[in-house]
Parts: sequence; structure tokens; C-alpha cells
Amino acid sequence: MTTLDDLPLRDELRGLTAYGAPQLDVAVRLNTNENSYPVPDAVVEAIGKALHAELRDLNRYPDRDAVALRTDLAGYLGVEPAQVWAANGSNEIQQQLLQAFGGPGRTALGFGPSYSMHPLLAKGTGTRWVGALRGPDFGLTPQAAVAALAEHRPDVVFLCSPNNPTGTALDPAVVDAVLDAAPGMVVVDEAYAEFARPGTASALAALPGHPRLVVTRTMSKAFGFAGGRLGYLAADPAVVEAVQLVRLPYHLSALTQAAARAALAHRDALLATVEAIKAQRDRIVAELRGRGLTVADSDANFVLFEVGGDQQAAWRRLLDRGVLVRDVGLPGWLRVTAGTPEETDAFLEALS
Amino acid sequence: MTTLDDLPLRDELRGLTAYGAPQLDVAVRLNTNENSYPVPDAVVEAIGKALHAELRDLNRYPDRDAVALRTDLAGYLGVEPAQVWAANGSNEIQQQLLQAFGGPGRTALGFGPSYSMHPLLAKGTGTRWVGALRGPDFGLTPQAAVAALAEHRPDVVFLCSPNNPTGTALDPAVVDAVLDAAPGMVVVDEAYAEFARPGTASALAALPGHPRLVVTRTMSKAFGFAGGRLGYLAADPAVVEAVQLVRLPYHLSALTQAAARAALAHRDALLATVEAIKAQRDRIVAELRGRGLTVADSDANFVLFEVGGDQQAAWRRLLDRGVLVRDVGLPGWLRVTAGTPEETDAFLEALS
Repeated sequence: MTTLDDLPLRDELRGLTAYGAPQLDVAVRLNTNENSYPVPDAVVEAIGKALHAELRDLNRYPDRDAVALRTDLAGYLGVEPAQVWAANGSNEIQQQLLQAFGGPGRTALGFGPSYSMHPLLAKGTGTRWVGALRGPDFGLTPQAAVAALAEHRPDVVFLCSPNNPTGTALDPAVVDAVLDAAPGMVVVDEAYAEFARPGTASALAALPGHPRLVVTRTMSKAFGFAGGRLGYLAADPAVVEAVQLVRLPYHLSALTQAAARAALAHRDALLATVEAIKAQRDRIVAELRGRGLTVADSDANFVLFEVGGDQQAAWRRLLDRGVLVRDVGLPGWLRVTAGTPEETDAFLEALS
Repeated sequence: MTTLDDLPLRDELRGLTAYGAPQLDVAVRLNTNENSYPVPDAVVEAIGKALHAELRDLNRYPDRDAVALRTDLAGYLGVEPAQVWAANGSNEIQQQLLQAFGGPGRTALGFGPSYSMHPLLAKGTGTRWVGALRGPDFGLTPQAAVAALAEHRPDVVFLCSPNNPTGTALDPAVVDAVLDAAPGMVVVDEAYAEFARPGTASALAALPGHPRLVVTRTMSKAFGFAGGRLGYLAADPAVVEAVQLVRLPYHLSALTQAAARAALAHRDALLATVEAIKAQRDRIVAELRGRGLTVADSDANFVLFEVGGDQQAAWRRLLDRGVLVRDVGLPGWLRVTAGTPEETDAFLEALS
């Protein structure tokens, strides 16, 4: 039998295993920060109708530039359509950014622990990755960020706010300092922005006057649209032109474009779950702290907490009790998604 | 205003414009080799139903490995599910292959004129591209192919059969010779396989015993599913493991997976148009030759023909008469898609 070792695979891929959280059939799945609420019936009907309208002409290629969808996304963000680009998940958005601004001979830098796909996307695009570190409390100060930039001069900097897996939004002073000091592009991954606590700033506010700033977003989390795969960015129109040089033609299907537009048109119904999820998040934080555990502040739909021991064993014990959470590879810590009240009940009971 | 020149774009992307045929609102669109027949009503209903069944759970991520869809595709090809991988169009399949087996420090080679995305995918993945040439009659002999391999020792070879834009399928002796001589992976792009004339071989037959062979296919052409974006490959299971190291997690939406499965289940209805399209293709070839034009043999759903002069001017004149064909950048030649009888009528009349 032929194995991977028999194939002329790139050297840096040898010995790796495919990325991804276990997809297990468990009653309580709190491991990938999905929105636990199914799509409401009225929105199901609306998306179904929008999809049906596309089917007869599926023999034709979709709009390569997804203009109507980008217009709707721009309306949601309060920016211009020319500032928006969309793709199959924010992973594809970030891959396109690295193809345009990173790649062979270039360097990308992030501050870990952070979203584990950032270094993998760098590897997949031949970009050298520098993993700078957050402080021991998972914080990031303007001084620490600027020092890392001065040392490594990265072509692309990834910030993540609210940060995955730690949960806390960045102080806008960090974004400002990085924008001032970065020699290249600054990508702020705001996948969890809709869950931030009141008063939390979005980097969208910094777009005017900062053509090297890119804010990436997703419909996978707050919108409950993970299965639909829609990520997007907001930036200067020139950045959109740049990713159009590397995007695959017709990368976004007619079905994806239509479904995402229908979901956006019903965003009030879809985002209605956000406050309920934030309440569960705050409940989890308070409960775990009440039990004496160390818990990171969270502006997202998940909570990172210290298990007081081996997190792999704790992960397994929770799974044995029917609750799937995420071992993000941080010794002593686990991450749990905030879902429905019943899911919180099940998690808290399984943990005790 | 910020322009692309103000951004730290990769040097090799400077001065490029985004790939893509003009998307013009013209009555007769014969420029992107779509299937001109809309999806039949019964298939519309079946796909609509399959999509509807996914919508309530769109808050959950899709099956990352698309096992059910790959099983269906394997059934269509007559191979094992572990030999199949699927993505958003065969462009994404080929990009993943280059990420795994090409990339920085590696070389890919193709024989032009051929599918113009192959060199662009190489550029987008940091792979050096060698453009070897077909003969003056657009033919490729085993000897010429082997000589190019000996000279350039590419890590990845692209063959295209039936070849786009010339239309003719490769002699299996070429594939065999390339498989014997290639030092790396051999990718045979068979996007148009279903349109081949009787007796034309597919490289699928060569898969047993050739773990470095990859055959790529698409549902965009014969299946009339261009808007659904579904490309796939068949190869040794180890190749599938390799692309899983570089694929973006959850790259294929729940909607894409469900719609493609429903389309495959109704493949008899969808592929029923293939014979009618082949008849129009053969009619175009015969008509143009009857008018004294030089025309390439075609196993695809398009025809490459010599216009006897400036092809850009001829393209414009056809467009002025409401017929959009493709200028593939071959001096003196144009490519026209074979569609419905009425579209052929319109094309032939506009050309005269």
C-alpha cells in the first residue's frame, strides 16, 4: 500500500496530521464555538426560497465578484461595498491575504495563544511564521506588540479580537500601536465581534486612514451560519483589488451567495440569540470562578478555564459524561463554547 | 486614494489584472464552456428538497471530510471513496495539489496552449512554472512530453485531456509515457471528459499501480452545475491524505455537499444533455470546415477555430452581433462553446 511517505510531499508537511477538532457524535457539542441555536423556521423558509430561485440557472457560473452579497455585507458593517470581500469562511479570506501579501520570502507574525489556523495558513502559503507570545495572563500590551514588530519586521501581522482561544478583546490602544509600527499589513480577526461586551471597540473604526488594515469577520458564529461557510473582510478598496488577483475564479457558489444574502436579510432573527449566548457565557465565567477556578475574561461565545491539572484527562472525563469541549493544546486549560442554558447545565454538572 | 501600488503586494503580482472572462449580459453566451441547458424542473425540486433539509442545522459546521459526497462521486467514477477528494471547483482541487506537492522551491510544468489557470495557480502557490509547448497542430507526442520532463524535472506535471482550449483528448500513450518519465506528481485535468468522442480513454484507467497520478474532474460542465462549484479528484488514497494536510477546514459547505449529492443522484437527467451538446459541437466543426476555416478536433463542449485574421477584432464583431465567444489569447484563433441548436444558429449566422 502506498503511504504518504511514498509521495513527493513538501518537506514541511511531513509528519503532520490534518487540522481539525474531533467531529464526534456527542449530545452536547461545545468544542467549535458554533451557535447552538438552530436556524429559526422563518429564516429556514427564506433561505430555502432564495436557494430555490438559483437552482434552474445553476448551469451558469456565479457572479465572480459577488457584488450583491458584498453590498449586503457592507450595509451590515456600515462601510462601502468596494471595501468588502467574501469567501468560503474567513480561513479562505486569510489564505488569500497571505497569498497576496505573505508567501515565499515573507513573514507573518501572531501573538499566541491565538487562532491555531493562522500559523497553518502561513505554512500552506509558504509564509514564514513567527509566533510571538502574549503575557502570562494572555494579555497583550502596546509595548510588547511594538517590540515584537521591531524585532521581526513581519509583512503581515495577525491580531485576534476577541482572541480565540482566550476570549478577551484587545485594547484599541494595541491596534493603534500596531498600525503605527507595522511595516506591512495588519489583519484583525474579529470572528467573535458580535459577542463582545458593551463598550468593546471594533477595528472597523480604524479603517479610515489605514489602508494596510484588514478586519476579517465570519457568519459562522453569531449568525449561526457555520454550515453555510461565509467569511468576509473589510478594508481599503485597494486591498480588495489585491485579493482579487489571487482568489480562485468563481470561488463562491451561487448557492453560498444566495443563502448568505437571505441570512443577512434576516439578521435580526439570527442575531437574536447573541444576548442569550452572552448570558450563558457570563454565567459560565461566574460559576467557574465561584468554584475557585481561574477563568479568562471573555468577549466571545466561549470561555477558557484552568482545570487544575492535566487538561487531556479532564477533556476525556467530560467527553465520557457526554460533553465535548476543546483541548486547544494549552497545558492545564480547556475551552468551552457558551450555548443554550441546558448545555451550560450539562457542562457545569459534568465538570463537578 | 490608495492604489494597489501603495500596498506591500508580492512583487510577482504587481501589474497583473484579476483573471476572468468578461461577465457580460449578452443573449448568446458561448465563452465559458458552461452547459447551456438549465437544470430540469425535476432536478430543481430534488436539489431544493436536499438543500432545505440542511437549513435548520446550518448553525453547525459541515462534515469536514465530505464522506457521503465522496462516496457518491466514487460510485459515479467506479473507484473507492478513499480515492476521492472534493472542493469548491477543480481550481481549488488543483491549488491544494500544488500546496501539497508544489510550492516554494518546486516546479510545475504544463504543455500550452492549455487551461490558463494552471500557471496562475502555480503563481498563487509560489510554484515555479515552466510552460512547455504543444506542437504547431496543438498535438503532444510521447517523445516531446518526455523530452520536456527530462529537461525540467518538474515536481508536478499538468496534462489536460480533452485539452482546453484546443479541445482534443490526449493519446493514452502520452499519459503512459509521462507516468513512466515524470519524477513527481502527474495531474490529468479531465474537466471535459464526459464530452469525449467514443473510444476516448480516461486516465482513470491508469490509476491502479500509479500512486503519483491524479485525475481531476468537475461538475461545472457536463453536469450543468457551474453555479454549484464542485470539483473533485480521483487518485491513490495517500494523495487524498496529502491534500487533507493543506485543505482549509470545513472548505465545502453543507449546502454544496447536499446540492452536489442531489445532482449526482439525478445524473441521468443532467447528463442527458451531453449527446445533444456533442451533436452541436460536431455541427460547428463541420460547418466551419465547410466554410474553409481551420478547426481543431474536439472531444469537449467547445471548438477552437482560426478566424483568418485578428481574433480580437473578430471577437468584437461577434459580440456586436450578440454572441459572446472566448479570446483565449491565441493569435488568429477563437474558442466557442457548443450549446443549444439555437445558440449554434446564432453563432454561425453572426460569424458569416
